[in-house]
Amino acid sequence: MCQLLGMNCNTPTDIQFSFEGFAKRGGLTDEHADGWGIAFFEGSAARCFIDHRPASDSPVAELIRNYPIRSYNVISHIRKATVGQVKLQNCHPFIRELWGQAWVFAHNGDLKNFHPKLQGDFLPIGETDSELAFCLLLQTLKNEFGYRTPANRPSVAEIDKVLRPVCEQIAGFGTFNMLLSNGQAMYTHCSTKLEYIVRAHPFKNAHLVDCDLQVDFGAVTTHNDRVAVIATTALTNDEVWTPFEPHTFLVFEDGCPVLKNGQRAAL
Amino acid sequence: MCQLLGMNCNTPTDIQFSFEGFAKRGGLTDEHADGWGIAFFEGSAARCFIDHRPASDSPVAELIRNYPIRSYNVISHIRKATVGQVKLQNCHPFIRELWGQAWVFAHNGDLKNFHPKLQGDFLPIGETDSELAFCLLLQTLKNEFGYRTPANRPSVAEIDKVLRPVCEQIAGFGTFNMLLSNGQAMYTHCSTKLEYIVRAHPFKNAHLVDCDLQVDFGAVTTHNDRVAVIATTALTNDEVWTPFEPHTFLVFEDGCPVLKNGQRAAL
Repeated sequence: MCQLLGMNCNTPTDIQFSFEGFAKRGGLTDEHADGWGIAFFEGSAARCFIDHRPASDSPVAELIRNYPIRSYNVISHIRKATVGQVKLQNCHPFIRELWGQAWVFAHNGDLKNFHPKLQGDFLPIGETDSELAFCLLLQTLKNEFGYRTPANRPSVAEIDKVLRPVCEQIAGFGTFNMLLSNGQAMYTHCSTKLEYIVRAHPFKNAHLVDCDLQVDFGAVTTHNDRVAVIATTALTNDEVWTPFEPHTFLVFEDGCPVLKNGQRAAL
Repeated sequence: MCQLLGMNCNTPTDIQFSFEGFAKRGGLTDEHADGWGIAFFEGSAARCFIDHRPASDSPVAELIRNYPIRSYNVISHIRKATVGQVKLQNCHPFIRELWGQAWVFAHNGDLKNFHPKLQGDFLPIGETDSELAFCLLLQTLKNEFGYRTPANRPSVAEIDKVLRPVCEQIAGFGTFNMLLSNGQAMYTHCSTKLEYIVRAHPFKNAHLVDCDLQVDFGAVTTHNDRVAVIATTALTNDEVWTPFEPHTFLVFEDGCPVLKNGQRAAL
């Protein structure tokens, strides 16, 4: 099993505080030492940093800890290899282009006997069941909506409607906790384990679970900022995180949940 | 105009020496200060580091200078913005997946009135003519060869045959010096300016043009190593680089040129 971290905000925000604790789980406070990765959106483009070395010991992770990259949407993953070797091609997040947008995906869980029929528009580069699932999600979107330009891309609600049944179908093959973003919204599915928190004014202090680090969010935010953080397990021990109910499909936009299993989400 | 750097080898090699000089051109010894990027292949997967800050001053470039990533194929680019703003989405190299392989592309030159008809399998995320050209190259490959799996991908010679006329067609719109790789071979087109060198046993010393740094390749290589380095202009001042003739399409594999304008290349 692996660990997921996602962030969705209404203003470009850096993820250094959360990543500091999260990266510790890659070999120090937890056993997920088989590579890791993080992707930052800037508009429709994303830059993805991956490394086969444990996050707790990776020069690339060291860069991320020290270089504040501000983004509306971030997806990170640390890997405990179960299917596929420790190789770069098996490190999440995975990235593909559809409709002139980068799409970024990371998955926690194992899928058994999962051999979806792919039509060739999106094929896995590595050997993981996760990348297969990502290709199936994108192929389904492409089949449903066809060729779209930036001027007529489907809406968040339209995308939600197509993704939900595919995610349920994939979850039938095992555990499918996942984060997916195109830079506009963060689509998430929980089959077993995922928690989130929405931070907004009035901001408070927060203290990490995985190391002795504290931040006063009030000092680094404005009244209008709103940030949703999603993780496999809570990253802080003095805030109230909301666990996902199993088999929930939750969409975040502008730093808060907007659709829960297809219905307008209440904060 | 921008600057290109490529490396194609028969053994995984790090690019630190060449990158040290090349990165200086991003704001110090030359004016290409509008972002930069570098992609390293490992098998069919590639990891791509891009930054909108000048290469001479980028924390990500600092990482690359200090973290030896060994690769068979590397493509790097430093940008002087002419078309498209200084934004992450306009930084080369660009990356897409086709036939379960990452494809990486970088371009030097401007294309005027270039509006190719794209069918939607590969669409630009940013605003550059370069990314449009990349999408056209991949769409042409996909149209020609259809759905291919790792077991029946086209050969280097077959790919060469399809890419050459498209590159000539694109070069009709302006300057089209480019590097393209799928991790197996490095496809290059020169319309005005590109030079290369093949380093093999017996290896010698080399001294950079852009800073006072020297390396003894003999001390860090074996007798069997072979490395081709391709750049907009020579990176060293005590080796003999071979300038490309204008309108040359040259393919490198295992560290040496193998096809020149469709004919077997002589070393």
